[in-house]
Amino acid sequence: MSNAPDLTRAVAILTENDPPRVWSFVVTVFGDLAQREGDALSGRLLARMADVAGLRPETVRVALHRLRKDGWIDSHRVGRRSDYTLTAFGRAQSAAAAPRIYSDRAPETKEWTVLLANPSEPAAALAEVANRTNAVLLGDAALLVPNSVDEIDNGLLRICSGEVDIPDWVRALAGPEEIKIAYRGLHGRLQRAEPLLPDRDTSLVGATTRVLIVHSWRRVLLRHPDLPAALLPEDWPGEQCRRVVADLLSRLPRPVLDTLETLAAD
Amino acid sequence: MSNAPDLTRAVAILTENDPPRVWSFVVTVFGDLAQREGDALSGRLLARMADVAGLRPETVRVALHRLRKDGWIDSHRVGRRSDYTLTAFGRAQSAAAAPRIYSDRAPETKEWTVLLANPSEPAAALAEVANRTNAVLLGDAALLVPNSVDEIDNGLLRICSGEVDIPDWVRALAGPEEIKIAYRGLHGRLQRAEPLLPDRDTSLVGATTRVLIVHSWRRVLLRHPDLPAALLPEDWPGEQCRRVVADLLSRLPRPVLDTLETLAAD
Repeated sequence: MSNAPDLTRAVAILTENDPPRVWSFVVTVFGDLAQREGDALSGRLLARMADVAGLRPETVRVALHRLRKDGWIDSHRVGRRSDYTLTAFGRAQSAAAAPRIYSDRAPETKEWTVLLANPSEPAAALAEVANRTNAVLLGDAALLVPNSVDEIDNGLLRICSGEVDIPDWVRALAGPEEIKIAYRGLHGRLQRAEPLLPDRDTSLVGATTRVLIVHSWRRVLLRHPDLPAALLPEDWPGEQCRRVVADLLSRLPRPVLDTLETLAAD
Repeated sequence: MSNAPDLTRAVAILTENDPPRVWSFVVTVFGDLAQREGDALSGRLLARMADVAGLRPETVRVALHRLRKDGWIDSHRVGRRSDYTLTAFGRAQSAAAAPRIYSDRAPETKEWTVLLANPSEPAAALAEVANRTNAVLLGDAALLVPNSVDEIDNGLLRICSGEVDIPDWVRALAGPEEIKIAYRGLHGRLQRAEPLLPDRDTSLVGATTRVLIVHSWRRVLLRHPDLPAALLPEDWPGEQCRRVVADLLSRLPRPVLDTLETLAAD
């Protein structure tokens, strides 16, 4: 069911030059495998997966301690076993990111909004809207939102339309070079890993590989706002990455947690 | 038909602290009284009107020379009399300003456009559009046009809509304080002159008073782009000036040029 040597090479490719930080890896494991209320992961399973991912298993205890302190997870002792679950806060955080991570396509839009701040004052109102929407700052005092934005009395000029002319400099601001480079790097690693993956695998190594793919994808994806293709450069590599990620995840389906715990106990 | 002492006081009020420059006064005389093809004004009439307006009549000759050199007017000798007419260029300039000067209301709009320039480049394309439209620059890289703007490949982001939220800082940029002050000054002078004007007057002094009203109005009006009330400050004094100007001009109707020449020859 699992071709362990090939998968181990795939794991090495996925983590080369850029091993995940343990707490961030653990967040991805929960977000990908145990996001529903009642889902629990044992400390032993988490340590085994970290080990497969090339992380030192003893660092998992520290990461779990930190995540509990930060309100992300709760722990419960069940006999000699420690079980961990996401808190309501942790579930909300994971649920907020999930639609974007697992979406099979970039967003589309039928409405555009431009907001302008007074150029001679600090643009706090603009930053506030930028933070709660997927939008592109154009200089210090302008924001382009690929969506309608409700009228609010925040001192901003607001204009909405179904159409907008988007010149190349806006696309360059929306999809900066360093994120293109990150996507191209990820795409190269995914393409090298692809031939090493079986058509279908639900082993513990397979599950870890799956989590590492989600992790690498999420780390680039969440560095930029969720923008439609119309707003991104023509050579934007995000969508080809999305397609490879979707293909690879379909070959490494989400395992049943009980099965995974049994495998980790072997 | 004319109450000369009162009108002379009105002229003094209209020119106090701010006598027109002679060449500019002559341009207004042509624009207001002799804008049609074939309309001619004699040098004598222009000198008489300048005299009534408190300008030295001998400066008229210099102004006419300059205007001829600049291509605004042509001159023709008819016996001992010199006649002056607007050139095609002069008529075009006058005709371009006339609709705004004599309009009985500010423009209205159903379409708005925001144009944004790349904030890290000089905004030449924006300045070009600003020059050929009635629009408001919002900082270095944004322009608000109270109109639709056709798509052109000029590197600007363009968004058009029938609706826009216009905050106070935009109104303050569209209608700056120094122009409000100029309008308030003009309004005060017009209100003080108003009781001195007869209900109807077509004398040479009346015609000069009329020209001075048009001149004062045009000098403030053309300092700012032609913008709808929705884009101007709530306390914008432009419209109350427009109403007083229209009222006073209706009491000093445009005289027949031949009659005026006869009056000037007396």
